Amino acid sequence: MKIAFVLFDGMTTLDFSGFFDAMTQLNRVPGTGGVSWRFCALTERIVDDRGLAMQANAVAGDLTDFDLVFVPGGMATRQLRHDETFLAWLRTAEGVPWKASVCTGALLMGAAGWLNGKRATTNKSAYELLAPYCSEVVRERYVRDDRVFTGGGVSASIDLGLFVAESLYGTAAAKEVGRLMDYPYYQFQSA
Amino acid sequence: MKIAFVLFDGMTTLDFSGFFDAMTQLNRVPGTGGVSWRFCALTERIVDDRGLAMQANAVAGDLTDFDLVFVPGGMATRQLRHDETFLAWLRTAEGVPWKASVCTGALLMGAAGWLNGKRATTNKSAYELLAPYCSEVVRERYVRDDRVFTGGGVSASIDLGLFVAESLYGTAAAKEVGRLMDYPYYQFQSA
Repeated sequence: MKIAFVLFDGMTTLDFSGFFDAMTQLNRVPGTGGVSWRFCALTERIVDDRGLAMQANAVAGDLTDFDLVFVPGGMATRQLRHDETFLAWLRTAEGVPWKASVCTGALLMGAAGWLNGKRATTNKSAYELLAPYCSEVVRERYVRDDRVFTGGGVSASIDLGLFVAESLYGTAAAKEVGRLMDYPYYQFQSA
Repeated sequence: MKIAFVLFDGMTTLDFSGFFDAMTQLNRVPGTGGVSWRFCALTERIVDDRGLAMQANAVAGDLTDFDLVFVPGGMATRQLRHDETFLAWLRTAEGVPWKASVCTGALLMGAAGWLNGKRATTNKSAYELLAPYCSEVVRERYVRDDRVFTGGGVSASIDLGLFVAESLYGTAAAKEVGRLMDYPYYQFQSA
């Protein structure tokens, strides 16, 4: 499993890092086959919505060859969803089998066309903005529709990570991830 | 409230970012007086335990003039707690009024001498390592002893952030932070 973590200026770091922690912990769980990942952006240096600068290690590259693409949110998404340069780059992930977003990252997945006909969620403050991009805005903490996963606001990033881990690798693997993260709150789909 | 976020090579990003998100959301909550922050490290570029490079904007500077110093964890703390250069730098925060750690960041606070005679917690895997540094290892998600706050493993970072926000700014302010973070799990100390 090769994951593209999409980063952009004005993103919210916790949107990214909850999911990032959960999915990368899978490398410590036997039987998952392991995961690898790149930090993907249009520029090498990106700065989050509170001034934290991070460094991408896959810059402006084609996203075709990943198995999962992840898109965090942040206030910047409200403008970025109209940025044709960004969208053209994001759409290079069109054929990536699994897609996930947290918070207003759903607006970017929506603008890319990936939520057409799908049920999806986002930050509570952006339900109306999301509506035109999908078939139904689901007011849940996370939702899966086929191979597209979306999560709610900011801290839902951890829950979405465990949900994706459970969906792709099974409950036992996800429980081990939850233990490693010391996260008692996620409700597993099976016992 | 001026916060020093300590960063170091091999840290766990979610240890940092949960607390970071909660405390910096206080800027969106009226009546708190606002918060400011710096990303503090011994080198300008630091790389987390999964390869994410971040940029400090207060490099090798004296930490005296902050109101709160925050220390995340990560496997690297097991070595770093014996690194005299790092500890000498961290100890420049000795007089900082409020101190907080998540996960094995407690080992660094302990090595700095800040947990002497205090009750503290850490990642479940490090309870025994923490014991020599404090009066009692508390097996809770977060604990306060006077002006020192410690949190448990990784995802406890969000809970600790809300606990510190509530302790310093009151329940109403912390509830607004929890709403902004879309975090339904933290148990507030009062209604």
